[in-house]
Amino acid sequence: MSKQTGLKVCVVGLGSMGMGVATSLLRGGFETIGCDVSEDAMTRFVASGGKAIGNPAEAARDADVVITVVVNAAQTEAVLFSAGAAAAMAKGGVVLSFATMGPDMARGLEERVEALGLGYIDAPISGGAGRAAAGELTIMGSGRPEAFDKVRPVLDAIAQKVYELGDRAGIGASFKIVNQLLAGVHIAAACEAITFAKALGLDIAKVYEVITASAGNSWMFENRVPHILEGDYAPRSAIDIFTKDLGIVSDIGRNLKFPLSIASTALQMFIMTSAAGMGRDDDASVARLLAQVTGLDLPEAPGTI
Amino acid sequence: MSKQTGLKVCVVGLGSMGMGVATSLLRGGFETIGCDVSEDAMTRFVASGGKAIGNPAEAARDADVVITVVVNAAQTEAVLFSAGAAAAMAKGGVVLSFATMGPDMARGLEERVEALGLGYIDAPISGGAGRAAAGELTIMGSGRPEAFDKVRPVLDAIAQKVYELGDRAGIGASFKIVNQLLAGVHIAAACEAITFAKALGLDIAKVYEVITASAGNSWMFENRVPHILEGDYAPRSAIDIFTKDLGIVSDIGRNLKFPLSIASTALQMFIMTSAAGMGRDDDASVARLLAQVTGLDLPEAPGTI
Repeated sequence: MSKQTGLKVCVVGLGSMGMGVATSLLRGGFETIGCDVSEDAMTRFVASGGKAIGNPAEAARDADVVITVVVNAAQTEAVLFSAGAAAAMAKGGVVLSFATMGPDMARGLEERVEALGLGYIDAPISGGAGRAAAGELTIMGSGRPEAFDKVRPVLDAIAQKVYELGDRAGIGASFKIVNQLLAGVHIAAACEAITFAKALGLDIAKVYEVITASAGNSWMFENRVPHILEGDYAPRSAIDIFTKDLGIVSDIGRNLKFPLSIASTALQMFIMTSAAGMGRDDDASVARLLAQVTGLDLPEAPGTI
Repeated sequence: MSKQTGLKVCVVGLGSMGMGVATSLLRGGFETIGCDVSEDAMTRFVASGGKAIGNPAEAARDADVVITVVVNAAQTEAVLFSAGAAAAMAKGGVVLSFATMGPDMARGLEERVEALGLGYIDAPISGGAGRAAAGELTIMGSGRPEAFDKVRPVLDAIAQKVYELGDRAGIGASFKIVNQLLAGVHIAAACEAITFAKALGLDIAKVYEVITASAGNSWMFENRVPHILEGDYAPRSAIDIFTKDLGIVSDIGRNLKFPLSIASTALQMFIMTSAAGMGRDDDASVARLLAQVTGLDLPEAPGTI
């Protein structure tokens, strides 16, 4: 057990977000076990001073907190139940589930985790890899107050802002879904607007300057358009994150019989960009798709052909 | 002529924006003539200390600067040419055209104004009625440098920020079009997201708090959602402004053969809201339409039934 905190933490999923979370925990003095299907990711975590175990149940053995930083509800369920991580945890432990998923899925996981005598926090995150590495995530959390109390030192080590949005799972998931609807639409709109500006013959760097000071601005316009201006589509967050997240939004809307005209249109743009072979590229690649279709030349990064 | 500035200015169009511009000019010491089809608007301007003349050519007689604060290119053309305002201006005068219009229309107006020996600035504005009244508009301008030089004191009196985006008309118009594309999409997305949040059973005031601190935020989400939270649809900017502006965006896209999937979807939502009888209500009324369709109860202003 860590001398400083007394909590043993297991992070399952050492992608760009999970690695940042796990290294933030190391910095915070937690005994931290990393777990990933990628040997390379585990090697990098060990090089950062952590411990790594590839089997989720072994990695989670006697852990007070298990944090699942995987892609979706299905992977979360596979880690916690099929692979046995939840059953291996210390008595009274708490699961922190970070994946974006529908509220019904989050409530189902909470029920199964609580049936094992454990706590569960529905804790979707916002903030990119940089903020994960800095321990400055935003968490849109919901769950029982006693579960929050138990993991408070862990949350403090990884997040700048923790919203406690309700006392059961599903509420955090719903907030995240609303955020992802807006974020996805704003990325697609930013890409549509900046390529349209190019088609109008405008200096798109100047467009960025003017729009970011005007009523047309969005957090995503401000954050993603620089990737387009630099011609840099290395994935900070990939197209297929939004084919997934807007897919979840779309499923929920259909189940609720709630019409989501704009989100559905944005989803189609991400699907189209993924279909064109850019699913793993940066999500600003929607602009590249539109430029390809319309025969426009967007900036290219130095060294690209 | 004004003792302080030496420039005589005529403002045609005393709606919420034009009235703010005209009163800002009075405060700045300009001899200012207001002109509107509404007697009531002219009476209010006179009560503010201005002069008002209903006939555009008489109002613009010997004016050094004519500012057209009307709805579109057709009205701008009607004021300047059909009604004779341009021909009545002082020698070497400058027209400042504020309406949102396509770049081709702006270039056409510039050509006809210059043919009379006058200057023309394509000067679409951003910022609501409050900023117009405070003399703090943003102007996305383009036109000949000598025209800008001549009207500099006028611009200083009405705008906080003046972009000089090019030396001919059309460039300012294009920047404004890109801004309106984004602004319209962001309003429609904000309305879709906040009613969807309501359908998910969330506390929408809390959603506002969380989203405005997250990556899903936009200038419009932050500005318009409070109207929904307060149930206040008195028009700060009306639905039909965006049926018009996204209509212009859509026309340009079609002419350029540029696909505008998201902007077109947003346009349809404004049209649907207008069709439902809310064209003159605040543009956040897209949320009311979605709530009506889905049977959700959004907040109502105190005193409404």
